[in-house]
Amino acid sequence: MTTTIIGVGLIGGSLALTLKEKGLASKIIGVDSNEIHQAKALQLGLVDEMMELDEAIKQSQLVVLAVPVSVVMQMLPSILDKVDQQVVMDVGSTKEGIIDVVKDHPKRSRFVATHPMWGTEFSGPEAAERQAFANKACVICNKEETDKDAEELAERIYRTLGMHIVYMNAKEHDVHVAYVSHISHITSFALANTVLEKEKEEDAIFELASGGFESTVRLAKSNPATWSSIFRENRENVLDVLNEHISQLRKFKASLEKENYEYLESLMTHANEIKRILK
Amino acid sequence: MTTTIIGVGLIGGSLALTLKEKGLASKIIGVDSNEIHQAKALQLGLVDEMMELDEAIKQSQLVVLAVPVSVVMQMLPSILDKVDQQVVMDVGSTKEGIIDVVKDHPKRSRFVATHPMWGTEFSGPEAAERQAFANKACVICNKEETDKDAEELAERIYRTLGMHIVYMNAKEHDVHVAYVSHISHITSFALANTVLEKEKEEDAIFELASGGFESTVRLAKSNPATWSSIFRENRENVLDVLNEHISQLRKFKASLEKENYEYLESLMTHANEIKRILK
Repeated sequence: MTTTIIGVGLIGGSLALTLKEKGLASKIIGVDSNEIHQAKALQLGLVDEMMELDEAIKQSQLVVLAVPVSVVMQMLPSILDKVDQQVVMDVGSTKEGIIDVVKDHPKRSRFVATHPMWGTEFSGPEAAERQAFANKACVICNKEETDKDAEELAERIYRTLGMHIVYMNAKEHDVHVAYVSHISHITSFALANTVLEKEKEEDAIFELASGGFESTVRLAKSNPATWSSIFRENRENVLDVLNEHISQLRKFKASLEKENYEYLESLMTHANEIKRILK
Repeated sequence: MTTTIIGVGLIGGSLALTLKEKGLASKIIGVDSNEIHQAKALQLGLVDEMMELDEAIKQSQLVVLAVPVSVVMQMLPSILDKVDQQVVMDVGSTKEGIIDVVKDHPKRSRFVATHPMWGTEFSGPEAAERQAFANKACVICNKEETDKDAEELAERIYRTLGMHIVYMNAKEHDVHVAYVSHISHITSFALANTVLEKEKEEDAIFELASGGFESTVRLAKSNPATWSSIFRENRENVLDVLNEHISQLRKFKASLEKENYEYLESLMTHANEIKRILK
């Protein structure tokens, strides 16, 4: 199966590597507007060839969009215009806006809206990993709007990569990811800014930052363009969770200000309940 | 060297294991007020014997306090009352209050104030690890108030465990750890509460939580008693950083509310600077 991957960064590049390795793709065509990424993807062997979009679509059975969500929304309608029997899928972190933009498109049913829930804080073709995706969840949204063969191809691909499939409607998906992914990124970005603001002695950060700080601040290394696009698309849900998070932090603040250590401890005991859910 | 470890939990238990393994201690005596921990420490082979405090001090050359900071402050003066040539050290996460409580004690110079910057989110004797401490920093505070032989013993121990030594005064230490450790714990506890509050579908948390969420929320599993004591002792510094953190989060909130995505992206680009310092 000849596969076009649009956007050969962290996710697109990792997908290219694993599709080839698992024997799911015989040929990978890369499409990328960034010339440095084009050269790098070829050099690293992520793709067999770089091509213009129209020609790439013609030659492929599968077209994967692995660009920021806002770019998916721009490109998807015109890609579907050019599609015959090809399957088109995206791997974006929000789903409602993307699905909405093609809901009345005559070729809507050739499109599979997917979100493989894997990533790292790194970006670009150099960040691509061969051991990506395995043992994580992949969400497929609004399955009923997609042709059976297209949906089955997407499922087969993700299962072969070692993922388990979760079905959701797009609205529900976007709410859940605001909780379990997007807010973590915001707190991590904000934490990095807090420490950079307050701690002028960089040597001290470097010397003293032990595992705790590194793991909470890790996501602050993530790509601003990718995440700006995600937060924009999921703005209302993210704001909702962010407001809740600020009010949770205010409870810690109030307990310290009032020196109410019983309350402080009860907040932490409640937080410990996360153990019940995560390992 | 016979060593007494007061508090055979995560840190005390790990120290017991590594002191024995590295040949630094010939015999480890445990002291713990919790009977379940006493039994567990013996059963796991963390200590050779459990004993009452007074007898343990008499038999030891080294006494290590590995209990919550507030308990160190309660116990330390009376321990120093009973000390002759023994070395006493603590491993607490704040240092100013502890040092202050013995600053006029006639045996002050037998005490070494240390903070080995290693830990996990787990607690109790079962959490003790054999491979603890290596490649992390250990802070020794107010070195000049300690006898040379006592300070050298502490250094030798930590270097043998694979740590590098950083010297600071206690005040400076407490400010730095508020930035690079304590605030991470608060954000993580608060994040767990946010998600537990908003996300009633626990299955969704479990299914969808990928690496990002797990790493930012990991510290929320930490022991409330330990951390309540730390936050209490470092209250002013922690409040200072927490206020800054809330105002950093408000910037993210404002940028989303006003749909100012240029500003949002600039906040994240600034956060990316943490890469310069951490790997």
